[in-house]
Amino acid sequence: MRNLIIFTMLAALPAFGQDPTSERILHRAIEASRAYETLSHLSDDIGPRLSGSRNAALAVDWTTKRFREWGIDATNEPVMVPHWVRGRESAKLVSHNDQNIVLTALGGSVATPATGITADVVEVASYDELKSLGPRVKGRIVFYNNPMDMELVRSRRSFEAYRKAVEFRSNGASQAAQYGAIAVVIRSVGSASLRTPHTGSVKYDEKHPKIPAAAMTAEDAMLIHRLIARVNDVRMNLILTPRDLPQVRSANVIAEIRGSEKPDEIVLIGAHLDSWDLGTGAIDDGSGVAMVMDTMRIIHDLGLRPKRTIRCVLFMNEENGLNGGKTYFANHKNEKHVAAIETDAGAAAPTGFTTTLSGDAVTSLAERVRILDRIGAAKFETRPETGADTSLLVQAGVPGFGFVPDPLQYFDYHHSPADTLDKVDPLDLAKDTAAIAVLAWTLAHGE
Amino acid sequence: MRNLIIFTMLAALPAFGQDPTSERILHRAIEASRAYETLSHLSDDIGPRLSGSRNAALAVDWTTKRFREWGIDATNEPVMVPHWVRGRESAKLVSHNDQNIVLTALGGSVATPATGITADVVEVASYDELKSLGPRVKGRIVFYNNPMDMELVRSRRSFEAYRKAVEFRSNGASQAAQYGAIAVVIRSVGSASLRTPHTGSVKYDEKHPKIPAAAMTAEDAMLIHRLIARVNDVRMNLILTPRDLPQVRSANVIAEIRGSEKPDEIVLIGAHLDSWDLGTGAIDDGSGVAMVMDTMRIIHDLGLRPKRTIRCVLFMNEENGLNGGKTYFANHKNEKHVAAIETDAGAAAPTGFTTTLSGDAVTSLAERVRILDRIGAAKFETRPETGADTSLLVQAGVPGFGFVPDPLQYFDYHHSPADTLDKVDPLDLAKDTAAIAVLAWTLAHGE
Repeated sequence: MRNLIIFTMLAALPAFGQDPTSERILHRAIEASRAYETLSHLSDDIGPRLSGSRNAALAVDWTTKRFREWGIDATNEPVMVPHWVRGRESAKLVSHNDQNIVLTALGGSVATPATGITADVVEVASYDELKSLGPRVKGRIVFYNNPMDMELVRSRRSFEAYRKAVEFRSNGASQAAQYGAIAVVIRSVGSASLRTPHTGSVKYDEKHPKIPAAAMTAEDAMLIHRLIARVNDVRMNLILTPRDLPQVRSANVIAEIRGSEKPDEIVLIGAHLDSWDLGTGAIDDGSGVAMVMDTMRIIHDLGLRPKRTIRCVLFMNEENGLNGGKTYFANHKNEKHVAAIETDAGAAAPTGFTTTLSGDAVTSLAERVRILDRIGAAKFETRPETGADTSLLVQAGVPGFGFVPDPLQYFDYHHSPADTLDKVDPLDLAKDTAAIAVLAWTLAHGE
Repeated sequence: MRNLIIFTMLAALPAFGQDPTSERILHRAIEASRAYETLSHLSDDIGPRLSGSRNAALAVDWTTKRFREWGIDATNEPVMVPHWVRGRESAKLVSHNDQNIVLTALGGSVATPATGITADVVEVASYDELKSLGPRVKGRIVFYNNPMDMELVRSRRSFEAYRKAVEFRSNGASQAAQYGAIAVVIRSVGSASLRTPHTGSVKYDEKHPKIPAAAMTAEDAMLIHRLIARVNDVRMNLILTPRDLPQVRSANVIAEIRGSEKPDEIVLIGAHLDSWDLGTGAIDDGSGVAMVMDTMRIIHDLGLRPKRTIRCVLFMNEENGLNGGKTYFANHKNEKHVAAIETDAGAAAPTGFTTTLSGDAVTSLAERVRILDRIGAAKFETRPETGADTSLLVQAGVPGFGFVPDPLQYFDYHHSPADTLDKVDPLDLAKDTAAIAVLAWTLAHGE
């Protein structure tokens, strides 16, 4: 509350040369935010929203209803999604007094037999090392021991650190399977741990056998690393019993405020409605959903009518398939999207946006949204990629924008059981919403 | 390694008026420490050491053997201990889409039926509040929502914060049972959480029915608190299937360096060999065991012979019964203990000791161990209690000493799955050992 008062004082300073509508939007987004209320319902009342689950369906229904209650048109766009269900997951070191190893199945992993597989563990830190071992990993469990680069994280280049480490989560299983490995365990891709596993999807290369894949906590990875260094004889029993059920019909939720002059030109604002199953998807990506929904509510409540259409898309299945993004692209690629803004990086204090625009286009836009300086959200950085769900649109030439909250702690919680509502500060979430709302309005209403 | 070099430089400064033997002990404890090696075996190779478990027996055998390999007399003192075995533990909110609640059974808890119990959750923050509800908690699950006082923790009064919060873990079940509650769930007593449960023992009052008791993570406690505040209708299914097996014959491990002049006068140094089962008991209390074992090894290796006997006791069953401490007292209460030093507060950098001594006795002792200033371990604070395993000795009049490492992060890990070796810095552990070794030597060899 104290923060809100300070903000209100700052916001009351005169803003020379700013669009007064942006100013109204910014104020409303912060002073009358309902984003936290929306997020609370998604994460606390509904809970985890893994694609194909009952909760994911509840989230589609509830968000659709909510838009309509707010007086905003909303429709559901059918999307077929995987229905992968986590089963039992446990491991122990049979070479070391059956010591318990804390891990979680990677999303999409195939199962072990019900009694598990028992094999020696071989540690590698790179594909080069794997390759040099070659057939010696046959019949073994390959352990990818790749921590996030914490120097990068501390310098707020967390996503760069993530991209480097996540390679082994995504592709490590098939890389190891080609040499005959019978399972892989990775070190969880995360920047903090209290014996905390971080899940995420594994991608199988159809050329190689599909083998079970799990992420151990940082502590367990360090333990096995130490034991291998000391005795080089570590044997694990690994039990994973996930099931891949038939695909389920789910949906993207699409809401629109139609443009007054150029309704066929679309500014898309998007986030993803599905989440992983360990936490409640508060920062990934319930908060993004709350931001874009509240953006729509605010513009609607202020009685504003942009020249172009603002379309809010709540994508389904970003986490384990991207089927929502693919379906949207297939259905809408011939419509004229003038911008695609995606928010899928948590709900810490706003800093700005990545964008595919560069040069004068960015300078000019930054000038038009200079009001975002007041909430620390005025930084634009040119990048080739600005988000997953909108990646096909952006590859097709639509200018992309990726919302960037402070990334310092994002990977402390990302894809882990600790992704829960308490990690979100309501005022930060409101400021995030303000940043997106001002940018969307400016892009939709400008010349 | 860098730290070790800096320490060595500091330690090379002249120490006027200090006992040269203390100086030798301090140097040896740091420069030739094997405490981390001992701790590594206990926590990495053996793992969790819950009383009655196979691992606890392995720890008794290994530490006894280790003392003997070092040329130090060691014996086992039989102790009967509980054999409580954690079973399945899970919970979900049936009122909220079966949302998963992360919790762990409190040690010693009775079980629910295999299908669990399903009941409304009633939140209280105090026994007064419980009392005012009285019979209204009948048939319900009482939720004690008592976070640790983080202001106290940040001001390094963590143990004070712990003592206040742990009351509900220890006695909350029986307090609620007297009004007809059918289970209790507490907020984990811990100072950090990434959805991290902290276990610990529950004490049943024989006057009331024994009801199942579990600790939820901070996140889950906050979730239920929010849901109750919003809808006041939270219903939980709780499954706990621990088993209380017949008592097991276990042991305290006792090692001695006999005194040269007054062998019947004993300076006891103690730590506990058992641990909880979730983590590997690295900070609680593997590190304490490593400190006192290495103290013995150093004094022995230096060929020192104290005037009084230094007796090292590795107590069994501190966590869930204190039977090792009770047995030791029953068997040895008539021996002349001149001091009892206990270390059971983790392995962060040393700060000093609590002691039951006061006034001139403390001032004089502090002067004799002034060399501990060099490692920041020279602070003595008078307290009535200095440790659990030695509490009966101290109550009988033996001067008590409790080793005090920096307590700031201790309860981040305490009794949780995150109590693992990576939380211990080898140099801090060596300094801790040095502090205990110098104090023990001074008390055993002084006038």
